Amino acid sequence: MDTVNRQFRLAARPVGLPQPSDWNLTQEPVPDPGEGEVVVKNQFISLDPAMRGWMNEGRSYIAPVQIGEVMRALGAGEVVASNNADLARGDAVTGLLGVQEYTVTHGNAVTKVDTELAPLPVYLGTLGMPGMTAYFGLLDIGQPKNGEMVVVSGAAGAVGGMVGQLAKLKGAHAVGIAGGSEKCRHIVDELGFDAAIDYKAEQVEAALGEHCPQGIDVYFDNVGGDILDAALAHLARHGRVVICGAISQYNATDAMTGPSNYLSLLVNHATMTGFVVSDYGDRYAEGAREMAEWLAAGKIKSREDVAEGLESFPDTLLRLFKGQNTGKLVLKVA
Amino acid sequence: MDTVNRQFRLAARPVGLPQPSDWNLTQEPVPDPGEGEVVVKNQFISLDPAMRGWMNEGRSYIAPVQIGEVMRALGAGEVVASNNADLARGDAVTGLLGVQEYTVTHGNAVTKVDTELAPLPVYLGTLGMPGMTAYFGLLDIGQPKNGEMVVVSGAAGAVGGMVGQLAKLKGAHAVGIAGGSEKCRHIVDELGFDAAIDYKAEQVEAALGEHCPQGIDVYFDNVGGDILDAALAHLARHGRVVICGAISQYNATDAMTGPSNYLSLLVNHATMTGFVVSDYGDRYAEGAREMAEWLAAGKIKSREDVAEGLESFPDTLLRLFKGQNTGKLVLKVA
Repeated sequence: MDTVNRQFRLAARPVGLPQPSDWNLTQEPVPDPGEGEVVVKNQFISLDPAMRGWMNEGRSYIAPVQIGEVMRALGAGEVVASNNADLARGDAVTGLLGVQEYTVTHGNAVTKVDTELAPLPVYLGTLGMPGMTAYFGLLDIGQPKNGEMVVVSGAAGAVGGMVGQLAKLKGAHAVGIAGGSEKCRHIVDELGFDAAIDYKAEQVEAALGEHCPQGIDVYFDNVGGDILDAALAHLARHGRVVICGAISQYNATDAMTGPSNYLSLLVNHATMTGFVVSDYGDRYAEGAREMAEWLAAGKIKSREDVAEGLESFPDTLLRLFKGQNTGKLVLKVA
Repeated sequence: MDTVNRQFRLAARPVGLPQPSDWNLTQEPVPDPGEGEVVVKNQFISLDPAMRGWMNEGRSYIAPVQIGEVMRALGAGEVVASNNADLARGDAVTGLLGVQEYTVTHGNAVTKVDTELAPLPVYLGTLGMPGMTAYFGLLDIGQPKNGEMVVVSGAAGAVGGMVGQLAKLKGAHAVGIAGGSEKCRHIVDELGFDAAIDYKAEQVEAALGEHCPQGIDVYFDNVGGDILDAALAHLARHGRVVICGAISQYNATDAMTGPSNYLSLLVNHATMTGFVVSDYGDRYAEGAREMAEWLAAGKIKSREDVAEGLESFPDTLLRLFKGQNTGKLVLKVA
């Protein structure tokens, strides 16, 4: 093809928050698709907390991005050339498309989606990885029961906002912890949480004591650090802590901080369970179908926070780690 | 009654390791038993890590011992006077008898035991609280399967030594972490563990890597601190961490240290569950019956470490926190 592809490649492994010097913006021609391959013109790139982990050296649930490689990212776009019988020009697809304008990949590596059912960015949020993360993490691990108390941190983010909505859908109470009055207003007024705790303005542990006098039955943690400790201090008997992420820790340059209140698990016969959403790969279809039904029925709401322009990728990624997004953060490429 | 009762009472709440000044050795006459009560002449007092927690102020799974109260302890002894139809002079009983020579208590508060089946101290160990702790913690929470890898810390203690034996009984591999070559020899040669790691002489994390190349399926933690972190670093997928205690932390004067490797739960879809044995109170009979059968059949071994003399209680308790006991530590009163 005769088209230039701009790509963000990892230039160096970040220490702390990623710096501009950790990236190279490079250009190369888009190659013709090989046998079975398609060319996708990327329209939306997903910004997810997990990306910070992918930039680190070392063993994890997925191999790290290598220096010089195009940065790994989920994305959504349109097929502009196809050498694959199952995909045609004009098809909308999602997948690990990377931080770039065009992606040449085997057709098996992308998933065709229906933009009449939901706009493309929703497939990166509610009907994509964050939605599945909330769905399986809360419903399979947390298992909230009618009348129980569910608390979620990072509550104005893509995962957290959905966790609270799903908790309400299951008849539980939902309290969200978020930073700033606007986010707190959003999760209560728009998403239907019962209450919000503004960790920038309130003492989280005291506020949890007020909102959860019977203790927390399910705590869904996206942040780690002091907020995880505060929640542990208020666990109910047989409480379930779901470890989904630890965004407060991902850019730490010191050693990770563990939850010093972990013996609350002991005195409360409570459980802390971690997961990554890919553990549920064989059940995605089930989750996506049910979430799409709830979305169509207006039982859950999807909110996207759309930044513009491929070149703003480094700054947009920082917005995520600085807690400046409300809802699913995506980058509109063109 | 005409008898003097010597008692250890809590004089002050310890900061760090209990000091001699934290105790008062007092005397009072033994009262006559009231309606339904018995007088027990205590023969063995149980020394258990949980006692350190009972000395602290603050909310926990059980009320703290108050300043001036006789120190709470499990014990075993003989009924010497009875005003209770279900108990007679000469009966052997166990219960929360306290650190004292005689206990006057309602007959409902003690449990009659059969000293023909097992010697009295065994009812404070294998057939008592530590045995039940190992039984329910490993079998109900850890659920080791045939061929899986079980690692236990505090492996030469009353709970840890039984955890490894029960793991073997269920067809799992058992690796114990203990301090010193004599303890390590004991758990392998006498208790039948597959291997021992001497945390005083070896790098625990490296040693776990050697002994558990496929990772740890069940980690039973009695100690917390660095050893918990080392085990987390070697968890297998779907690993189960059983939080039974944290003896390395009980006398800390700084803030508790949490497990900084807790995100290993996330990447391994693993679970950390805490418990106290009283959670299983309604299933004690089941556990005690099965443990007694295994003991009688020679499938598990009981080991007691017997100190002598009520007046040595403060020093004997310190032996526990300094890791100087092998097997169940008890104090022979007279």
